Amino acid sequence: MTKEQENNQKNKCKYKIAQIASLTGAELKGQADILVDNACGVQESNQSSVTFVDQKDYLKQALNSKAPVIVSSYQIYSELDSKLNSQKTFLLTDNPRRVYALAAAALTARPYQSQKISKKAVIDQSAKLGKNLSIHPGVVIAENTKIGDNTILAPGVIIGPEVEIGANCLLHPGVIIERDSIIKKRVIIQSGAVIGSDGFGYATDSDGHHKIPQQGNVIIESGVEIGANVTIDRGASGPTIIKRGSKLDNLIQIAHNVEVGEESLLISQTGIAGSTKLGKRVTLGGQAGVVGHIELADQTTAAARAMVTASTKKGDFISGAPAQNHRQALKEQAYLRRLPKYIEKIKKLEQKLKELESK
Amino acid sequence: MTKEQENNQKNKCKYKIAQIASLTGAELKGQADILVDNACGVQESNQSSVTFVDQKDYLKQALNSKAPVIVSSYQIYSELDSKLNSQKTFLLTDNPRRVYALAAAALTARPYQSQKISKKAVIDQSAKLGKNLSIHPGVVIAENTKIGDNTILAPGVIIGPEVEIGANCLLHPGVIIERDSIIKKRVIIQSGAVIGSDGFGYATDSDGHHKIPQQGNVIIESGVEIGANVTIDRGASGPTIIKRGSKLDNLIQIAHNVEVGEESLLISQTGIAGSTKLGKRVTLGGQAGVVGHIELADQTTAAARAMVTASTKKGDFISGAPAQNHRQALKEQAYLRRLPKYIEKIKKLEQKLKELESK
Amino acid sequence: MTKEQENNQKNKCKYKIAQIASLTGAELKGQADILVDNACGVQESNQSSVTFVDQKDYLKQALNSKAPVIVSSYQIYSELDSKLNSQKTFLLTDNPRRVYALAAAALTARPYQSQKISKKAVIDQSAKLGKNLSIHPGVVIAENTKIGDNTILAPGVIIGPEVEIGANCLLHPGVIIERDSIIKKRVIIQSGAVIGSDGFGYATDSDGHHKIPQQGNVIIESGVEIGANVTIDRGASGPTIIKRGSKLDNLIQIAHNVEVGEESLLISQTGIAGSTKLGKRVTLGGQAGVVGHIELADQTTAAARAMVTASTKKGDFISGAPAQNHRQALKEQAYLRRLPKYIEKIKKLEQKLKELESK
Repeated sequence: MTKEQENNQKNKCKYKIAQIASLTGAELKGQADILVDNACGVQESNQSSVTFVDQKDYLKQALNSKAPVIVSSYQIYSELDSKLNSQKTFLLTDNPRRVYALAAAALTARPYQSQKISKKAVIDQSAKLGKNLSIHPGVVIAENTKIGDNTILAPGVIIGPEVEIGANCLLHPGVIIERDSIIKKRVIIQSGAVIGSDGFGYATDSDGHHKIPQQGNVIIESGVEIGANVTIDRGASGPTIIKRGSKLDNLIQIAHNVEVGEESLLISQTGIAGSTKLGKRVTLGGQAGVVGHIELADQTTAAARAMVTASTKKGDFISGAPAQNHRQALKEQAYLRRLPKYIEKIKKLEQKLKELESK
Repeated sequence: MTKEQENNQKNKCKYKIAQIASLTGAELKGQADILVDNACGVQESNQSSVTFVDQKDYLKQALNSKAPVIVSSYQIYSELDSKLNSQKTFLLTDNPRRVYALAAAALTARPYQSQKISKKAVIDQSAKLGKNLSIHPGVVIAENTKIGDNTILAPGVIIGPEVEIGANCLLHPGVIIERDSIIKKRVIIQSGAVIGSDGFGYATDSDGHHKIPQQGNVIIESGVEIGANVTIDRGASGPTIIKRGSKLDNLIQIAHNVEVGEESLLISQTGIAGSTKLGKRVTLGGQAGVVGHIELADQTTAAARAMVTASTKKGDFISGAPAQNHRQALKEQAYLRRLPKYIEKIKKLEQKLKELESK
Repeated sequence: MTKEQENNQKNKCKYKIAQIASLTGAELKGQADILVDNACGVQESNQSSVTFVDQKDYLKQALNSKAPVIVSSYQIYSELDSKLNSQKTFLLTDNPRRVYALAAAALTARPYQSQKISKKAVIDQSAKLGKNLSIHPGVVIAENTKIGDNTILAPGVIIGPEVEIGANCLLHPGVIIERDSIIKKRVIIQSGAVIGSDGFGYATDSDGHHKIPQQGNVIIESGVEIGANVTIDRGASGPTIIKRGSKLDNLIQIAHNVEVGEESLLISQTGIAGSTKLGKRVTLGGQAGVVGHIELADQTTAAARAMVTASTKKGDFISGAPAQNHRQALKEQAYLRRLPKYIEKIKKLEQKLKELESK
């Protein structure tokens, strides 16, 4: 990056706090013209930081920090001793985490944004490239591909044939997008993730397992984030779909023809078997597993390590292996813990009964 | 790909249906000279498709589809109303999934088959290269390696020193084959898989954990398929072996000196600890785990999430954690669900007994 | 490698056994000037091998092997029939595995040690490179990085911006080190591991999940080994730390701001959720999971598949899901297995009581 570009970039991430208030929809209390260039925790803050308090206990620390601006809730602000806060400017909101996230996003440079196409990338001449791309060394882009404006391909990213990638995406190092995949806008994919591997489909007879060609693809909708070393299989026929705004943590397995609904959250090491459909805002805890060919309704939550073997109804909260209603699962667990005591009781009952009978 | 190559490739995957019947061993009922160039589900079918029905319920849909050819069973065909099927040609068999798989394989081009060696690949001069290879940009091939005829190395594949790869293999993007590994014929490896990482072996004392050099290798026999981001460790001494025709799904861990028997099926996120031996046609469900130093006999099936802690006998079907006979595991689960009811009964028994005693 | 280098390397790994005794702290019984150049199992041994016996049953085999040198314990040596061992030289110790590991390490060449910087690597001009590096084709090193002396970067390794790597490290093929990470000395990272992916952090409201920029980094201390396809997330703010001498197996997930204590052992497919701290010498069995924001005290052991939901005390041994004291967990399991029998007893008691009442 030239000094000029460096300055440009720095300038882009420097805002008057009034601009941040307007961007995030928060109410400004204090000086509107403070310049900020970073958002961080109280302890790491400096004289141009926006910091964040969503519990009253941490307020004092924030007031004593170097940060000139504090994102907080109306609630916490209202309880504030008026003598203390004279030095600080506040961004007030009912959802401080949201405002902080939006402020931090505005104040954080996108990684790998070189705005250059490296000569050490290998790009097929049939590829249709958008504007303002950052394409790093070691990237390979195959034939008949499209890459949207402002998209960043970090070092070692591999884009297979017939792939389409939308605008403003960020693919971290070593991401692999297999043939025919469609990645929409503002998608972030962490390092080592594989999108579009063949699904696990075989026809078995006495000669062995005969591979059924996996002819579908993968569609990743806008605003999705995919974690490191995740694997998402292409459909056997038709697509595997990750819908708008869903977030997948690391090392997750998504089998062929799965559909993950809008704004779902899948925690790391989760696995979903073939053709299962998740509704909107489904949450799967870490290391959960979901069998194939079922439907998890909107707002289903499965706890960590749940083994989900049946379809759910809207808003169900399930846990255990096999998963059941969470309250029921906790009850069962509690009974199990009391089992030794009750087995003792049975033995005593037998003894007493024997005594009674012999009378 | 030039237009000419494109046409060549298309021609290769265009067959008269009589040829497909002969290739797959199915019986042809209908017109022998229909030209087909794809195999797919009923809904995606077009005028040159082979499609597939193995349940009577879906037959009507297939008869109304654009596909001129239907793979089905004698059973379903025999129940067919003779007026309906006049338009379609049938490929009949006792195993429609097998015939469909073989037909689809014949009608599907191998991905990444460029039949070129890219100048953007880095190939050590000591490497012995077979005929008709497809080696893509970003591939690195180290010293003293052998690559068999017709093998495809997709972009970013890394072949370590002293590796041997047989004929007709397909390594998807970003696959890593570590030093000394032996990959036999017709092996398919999905993206991001690592073959031949060091096993987890240390000698511990008060100074810490001292690495025991892992001096074995990995042998992948013919016809095996390995899923995306799988890890297979080299033996500590002697090989880790995946035997002929086995299929491994994504994100599986195979530890050092494991042996996976012929035609086994391992579903995703399974882990097998060191030195364990699997027999022929062993099936492990998703997220199953197998401890080290045991033997699973031929045709053992462990259900999803099974935690296998003991050797098995031929044909065993086990589940649960720790795994036990599946029927027993289901029974135990059922009893557990009834536990609250029985604890109530114990309380009532105690009460009644007290009443009896006080009489 | 030239013939000369090859010879150099071979010479480096050839020792008089007296040197190995001195290096490993073992006592030499036999001929001090035997030349050895490899360490291996009894069956693979040749006339210049050091081999290893830590169980008396295997001693005879070792005595009949080609290996001139046997590492063993004083105990086993003392029970040896004096007529048998005349031919062999012994390295004696109380910890044969440790001595064997150290001997094998001395006798094994580091893989990928080319001592060359490939012209097919892409190295930013701002990178500060140490002495005697081995940098292979396909490596990409970004701006403002430091690489310590004698470090080996195998083919396809990607080093992000602002990364520091210490001396004597070995990064296997395809390893990805994301921006800002710090890797100290003598660290080994197996293929496909991702260090420094973004943590899973979002602020949720009715519009969706808003990404909270992950501004921390990852610190890997000296002597750590990281397995294949492991993912270690950067801190949200502040570091994620893997402390000195810890060893991580394959396919493990470490979330943001986790701290793994010194000399811990994490077996494959383990997952640790955000901000959890592990003490020294903590052991997690395969497929274990640990929830966020807890502390596992020094020398905690969690068995395979444990689901750890609460902090522990020093030396705790826990198992099960949710994990509890291991002895307690085994007892609970045993009671569960006896449950059918006790439910039968309850039924009989009810029957008898009815009979008594009706008398």
